[in-house]
Amino acid sequence: MLTIAIAGLGTVGCAVVRQLRREADMIAARAGQPVKIAAVSARHKGNKRNCDLSGIAWVDDPDDLSVMPDVDAVVELIGGADDPAHRVVQLALANGKHVVTANKALMAKHGPALAALAEKSGVRLSFEAAVGGGIPVIKAFRESMAGDSIESFCGILNGTCNYILTRMREEAMSFESALADAQKHGYAEADPAADVDGHDTANKLAILSGLAFGVQPDVRAVTLQGLRHISHADIGFAEDLGYRIKMLGQAQIGEEGIEQRVGPALVPKSLPLAHVEGTMNAVLLHGRYAGPLMLEGLGAGGPSTANAVVADLVDLARGGKINTFLCGAERLKPLVPAKLKPTRYYLRLQVDDKPGVVADVASVMRDEALSFESLIQRGGSSTQSVPVIITTHAGDVAAMQRAVDRIAKLPSVRELPCLIPMEEA
Amino acid sequence: MLTIAIAGLGTVGCAVVRQLRREADMIAARAGQPVKIAAVSARHKGNKRNCDLSGIAWVDDPDDLSVMPDVDAVVELIGGADDPAHRVVQLALANGKHVVTANKALMAKHGPALAALAEKSGVRLSFEAAVGGGIPVIKAFRESMAGDSIESFCGILNGTCNYILTRMREEAMSFESALADAQKHGYAEADPAADVDGHDTANKLAILSGLAFGVQPDVRAVTLQGLRHISHADIGFAEDLGYRIKMLGQAQIGEEGIEQRVGPALVPKSLPLAHVEGTMNAVLLHGRYAGPLMLEGLGAGGPSTANAVVADLVDLARGGKINTFLCGAERLKPLVPAKLKPTRYYLRLQVDDKPGVVADVASVMRDEALSFESLIQRGGSSTQSVPVIITTHAGDVAAMQRAVDRIAKLPSVRELPCLIPMEEA
Repeated sequence: MLTIAIAGLGTVGCAVVRQLRREADMIAARAGQPVKIAAVSARHKGNKRNCDLSGIAWVDDPDDLSVMPDVDAVVELIGGADDPAHRVVQLALANGKHVVTANKALMAKHGPALAALAEKSGVRLSFEAAVGGGIPVIKAFRESMAGDSIESFCGILNGTCNYILTRMREEAMSFESALADAQKHGYAEADPAADVDGHDTANKLAILSGLAFGVQPDVRAVTLQGLRHISHADIGFAEDLGYRIKMLGQAQIGEEGIEQRVGPALVPKSLPLAHVEGTMNAVLLHGRYAGPLMLEGLGAGGPSTANAVVADLVDLARGGKINTFLCGAERLKPLVPAKLKPTRYYLRLQVDDKPGVVADVASVMRDEALSFESLIQRGGSSTQSVPVIITTHAGDVAAMQRAVDRIAKLPSVRELPCLIPMEEA
Repeated sequence: MLTIAIAGLGTVGCAVVRQLRREADMIAARAGQPVKIAAVSARHKGNKRNCDLSGIAWVDDPDDLSVMPDVDAVVELIGGADDPAHRVVQLALANGKHVVTANKALMAKHGPALAALAEKSGVRLSFEAAVGGGIPVIKAFRESMAGDSIESFCGILNGTCNYILTRMREEAMSFESALADAQKHGYAEADPAADVDGHDTANKLAILSGLAFGVQPDVRAVTLQGLRHISHADIGFAEDLGYRIKMLGQAQIGEEGIEQRVGPALVPKSLPLAHVEGTMNAVLLHGRYAGPLMLEGLGAGGPSTANAVVADLVDLARGGKINTFLCGAERLKPLVPAKLKPTRYYLRLQVDDKPGVVADVASVMRDEALSFESLIQRGGSSTQSVPVIITTHAGDVAAMQRAVDRIAKLPSVRELPCLIPMEEA
């Protein structure tokens, strides 16, 4: 019998309780022993919940779960990088309990220290549900690639952003309308900053970098850009050029260090990532031996995320030892950030429809040694501004940023330019 | 230290030796202990091989590997459903050695009996490399979905077939030319029957059905169709209709039993499976909790398949107990085959270009209660035959076969009709 306690009874917590109860016999047969919920804890005892808690002890203070003598594992579903989630996990590990968590912010910030604590106590720290919801991304990185070296990976890791971009494209919506729609359907929080400004993707990326490259996750070393500056016009222009705009998390290792980048990018429609739509998530990795491997599935939602938690519990019941970050915590090196590699760019300018504008822009580009791949100027009336769409050959990232800062100040440029990296086909 | 012996030193065997040697330190750190090759065995000792066997004992008879006292696990890479591979695995399990195998034919035919033997001896029988090469399909089915119920799955499981179909489409090649091209590149055997007639896909499908539905793999219950009747014209017509032709393995469970089907099918281009090209493989499953999950990667090749073998070895070194087929072998039920569900069809006829032909075909269809979705007759000279492309609404599989048998005998039908199921978008 594997006896567990659950801290946090939101959507995922309740879905875990439901699945463990409904599938109890099947899980016992497959896991080699039953998985029993001994206790739960959540902030508000009186809340109506869509799960049956009969026969399960209620504990007011989640810290107390970690000292229950018959509990083998604590499932942390409180969320957030710091207390109370952090303290619950620390206490559980220190008291020799295995921990299963869905908490990406916690793992990105405190992962190595918690991993060291788990190793000291000889217990497992599992976090399949922290990245990619129902997609077995952690298992792929930590188990399937255990004999391999991941050279780079790239993912659509935030369902809220992907839903917003999909709606903007399919329904010709503005960012604001698509966000409101996502909030209405429960795909976005009232405060959407963590999702649309890229912090959630950055946390997941940092965890995957830790696993892929054997380093301490370092979310501060992620070059981060949000989604708010993308207009419906950009999505249409991208489509015309043969691309879809996706919110990507990307990392690669090179001789100089590790490059980590989060932000919108133009993805060629010839690549499978371009066709990951709505709330679906996907990760594409390149292994030295395994070659390319892509995983796609539901990145969020109660049942699919709960299924990842349950799979971690079955793994626990099956036994065996596995390090939290592939190698031992003491072997994790600090991440050495690498300068971003030269990139192709999409640049949209809103300019006065008069002669000389392109010449001004071209002269700034020349000064920064950046070269055009294409330029399209949409005709318009002379009283209004018109869009100019420029794509560039691969150019230095800092030079491109300097050029855009100068271009933004040109008198005939009306709005803040919109600059988006372009992926290679 | 996990000490292993390898039986079979072909492409995959040599790649396993190379990877274990090159990555020895990394693997030891990640697995928690070193993985050491104590002995190898292969048919011809004198063969030139692209791997370093120094310090590894050579054993002439692979049966002897199973009685070496210091060997913890035997890696079977001989291939084939029966002896010598079967005997080697049986002996190893009976002697308390763990087994890692890449042998789909063996697992499809003898899986449950070998699983029972492994359980009796308290050892693991791992077979990640048997399905999907470098793609962690077995891990997804056996571990990530351990708390879930897979309702259906569908896959492109044979790289040879997918390569042939991709070449036929991209280069407007005939089946015969594309097969010759695949043989030239080492993607097809001199005798291609196992691949192009679907037996390899059927073996993999049977194994996945066993895992997904908790039944004994039963390859005889697979409705099987090969690839040889597909012409370049069919691929072109499919493209015009918005479809790609793919060699699919499909299974689903219903109240009446389990439906298993292998053969070419028209896949709508809106589905990701339509875009899995060349030697890539992919599996799409639908879980009750996890929802849709797709995995795509290299389905064959030395390094990627070896990486799956190495991952199995690392899992072994990490310890823990896992049943071969999710639940215990004695719980595996015999598979109850279900009648194939009604299906939409693509039907290409080569007919005399004269009035009345369509009326004759339509009358046969009416007799079998089958209804047209579309019909396109290409114009031509009256001295030659012309193609008629029919798509149908979902119709009974047996009725459709009867109709095609009658249509084939119509005097104005010149060639054997080509009938291919169509997938729903």
